[in-house]
Amino acid sequence: MFTVYGMSDSGNCYKVRLALDQLAIAHRWVEVDTRRGETHSAGFLARNPNGQVPTLVLEDGACLPESNAILNYLAEGTALLPADRLGRARVLQWMFFEQYSHEPCVAVARAILRYLPPDSPRRAELPRLQERGNRALGVMEQHLQKEPFFAAGRYTIADIALYAYTHCAADGGFDLIAFPAVRNWLARVRAQPRHIVMPA
Amino acid sequence: MFTVYGMSDSGNCYKVRLALDQLAIAHRWVEVDTRRGETHSAGFLARNPNGQVPTLVLEDGACLPESNAILNYLAEGTALLPADRLGRARVLQWMFFEQYSHEPCVAVARAILRYLPPDSPRRAELPRLQERGNRALGVMEQHLQKEPFFAAGRYTIADIALYAYTHCAADGGFDLIAFPAVRNWLARVRAQPRHIVMPA
Repeated sequence: MFTVYGMSDSGNCYKVRLALDQLAIAHRWVEVDTRRGETHSAGFLARNPNGQVPTLVLEDGACLPESNAILNYLAEGTALLPADRLGRARVLQWMFFEQYSHEPCVAVARAILRYLPPDSPRRAELPRLQERGNRALGVMEQHLQKEPFFAAGRYTIADIALYAYTHCAADGGFDLIAFPAVRNWLARVRAQPRHIVMPA
Repeated sequence: MFTVYGMSDSGNCYKVRLALDQLAIAHRWVEVDTRRGETHSAGFLARNPNGQVPTLVLEDGACLPESNAILNYLAEGTALLPADRLGRARVLQWMFFEQYSHEPCVAVARAILRYLPPDSPRRAELPRLQERGNRALGVMEQHLQKEPFFAAGRYTIADIALYAYTHCAADGGFDLIAFPAVRNWLARVRAQPRHIVMPA
């Protein structure tokens, strides 16, 4: 059975939980609190030297970090990952967009507002994060005005990756009112079979 | 024939040029100067709404952005990308590491030192970028002390992705003296058949 080392309140970890549930893959979840430094213990670093959750442990003990690599591993051969070359590349295009242009703004703004004290000097980063996060949401909006999902015309792991922090973007001070196609897509993702919500 | 919109001095674009050359895929290169705002022209945004190079244009006119998605597309079915499920996931693990933990530090420090004036206020970002970049280089060092390459025990697109900005890390103020296994790996990458250097 797979084991996931994850923090329930992390969107990157929620991605993995959502994919496992939608693929009906039994797994064990080990809660790790990054805020208490648990990802930098010697035991955890032996599993992932980069000190991040989620990390998936396979049945033979091999450890696979990076949320979007895990999603690709889990979805291989399933309806959540296209089989054709361009379809796979489109999934990856949006997953790299997510990790480079979206998560470092939308998720980091959320973390600053949610986990750091109100007088944290890191609040000074918020205007730039919100400007860049809104730009990423605008790129999504433009795509979703023409397409129902991000790749291959159907629900894939690219949607799971982008849903994770978009659906809770308000936590980072983002207002989705200006992004109606994004809001409609969020509803389409929530309507997928076996959808689960991120733990409170 | 493929067309690449790229900036020759960009490591992300060099990745694509290197893979195309090593795979002996004929292509046309269109030089785009991001520093002159050319990625934000209406013509360019029609190809990539996220306004970034590289962008690959396929023979049918479809546009594929995101350097690492392009590498996966090009390498499909070749020796540069493992065929097995875990091998592919390992390649992606290191490619997502590259775009999340490495490029935003090593490449951004390089861009600040190389393209911005000496009195740029963005120089204030350098200590944090160098601390985080050195941490990423340390994760690579730890892996390369045990393995010759990043995935599947052989040269893959994961190596191309990480080589792009590691080989010119000195431009960002990084000293590889503390990372001997990284330096030996750089030499192994340079020794691969059909290697080409990044244009000066």
